Amino acid sequence: MPARAPDPQRRSERARVAVLEAALALCRERGFAALTIEAIAERAEVSKKTIYRWWPSKGAVLLDAVSLLAGRVADFPDTGDLEDDLTAQISVIVDLLTPPDSSPVAALVTEGQRDATLGAQIRDDVVQPTIVNFDARMRSAQAAGQIPADVDLDVAVDLFYGPVYHRLALRLGMPDQAQIRARVRHVIAGLNAVG
Amino acid sequence: MPARAPDPQRRSERARVAVLEAALALCRERGFAALTIEAIAERAEVSKKTIYRWWPSKGAVLLDAVSLLAGRVADFPDTGDLEDDLTAQISVIVDLLTPPDSSPVAALVTEGQRDATLGAQIRDDVVQPTIVNFDARMRSAQAAGQIPADVDLDVAVDLFYGPVYHRLALRLGMPDQAQIRARVRHVIAGLNAVG
Repeated sequence: MPARAPDPQRRSERARVAVLEAALALCRERGFAALTIEAIAERAEVSKKTIYRWWPSKGAVLLDAVSLLAGRVADFPDTGDLEDDLTAQISVIVDLLTPPDSSPVAALVTEGQRDATLGAQIRDDVVQPTIVNFDARMRSAQAAGQIPADVDLDVAVDLFYGPVYHRLALRLGMPDQAQIRARVRHVIAGLNAVG
Repeated sequence: MPARAPDPQRRSERARVAVLEAALALCRERGFAALTIEAIAERAEVSKKTIYRWWPSKGAVLLDAVSLLAGRVADFPDTGDLEDDLTAQISVIVDLLTPPDSSPVAALVTEGQRDATLGAQIRDDVVQPTIVNFDARMRSAQAAGQIPADVDLDVAVDLFYGPVYHRLALRLGMPDQAQIRARVRHVIAGLNAVG
């Protein structure tokens, strides 16, 4: 039996994962500003040409790399306790953004503010799917009578997630779990008080 | 009477303001990424050397330029109506950050996320003084019995301002005045419900 030819699809998937892992590691070590396609290629042991065939920029590499991590973000726990579940889910996001100066996810958020094309892609590929799941969790809480049926979910998402981005954008220090829980509790109370 | 010698201090102040106005105008026209010290010098009719004598980077120029605008941000109206006053004050901030892709203030916030030194300076020179005035406005509301005396003001500032930075960072569209007011109303209700 002749030796099997190497499977080009499997090899190409291995190279893709190596590139994404190299980008994450280098971003953590050096920060996004010092990240280069050349360094990613060297670390991943692929050619720069290979990287440019798949991605137009280092921001685009990082977006795909962060998507490797983002499954955890999009999944919403539903234990029946809304305060616990939102505290847990927001804590996962805070962990991904910490420490802000070397977190690849924080670098990607910042880069998305600078680069309109990348920013729109982040919003459409990562943020909006998470909001769809957030809305489903809110509807479950509405069905359980924990928040009013007529709550404006656009208001709710801004209030629950806002503190994280306020503190990130203005360098006010990322919140710990007790601080996250205090904010979640106030928002749930506010949604119930206004409806 | 001999002609007066030119006043070097007045001339230097004129040059400083010309540089700051040039930086703001160019940032609006071209965006922060395309802003260069060379272009600022040309527009302001000063030498690059003059700019570098006063500022270490284009981010530092923009911080001073934005400080020209920031008096409006730091001042908190106190008409006695907390919902009106916070809606008005947050609307001023939203105006300064709009449109996010050409607002010099939005560019400065983003640059402060990338550059730790600049970010700390923005926080200390612009954000913290605004929070001091926010706290004073909250204490006035507490004295008027509009929010509980034991409200955690760190929670309050995150909840009131969070929606703006959530929408800015994730490109969800800046809120209009009715949307700002709806969020403010929920936060005030939440502060009163939890205390």
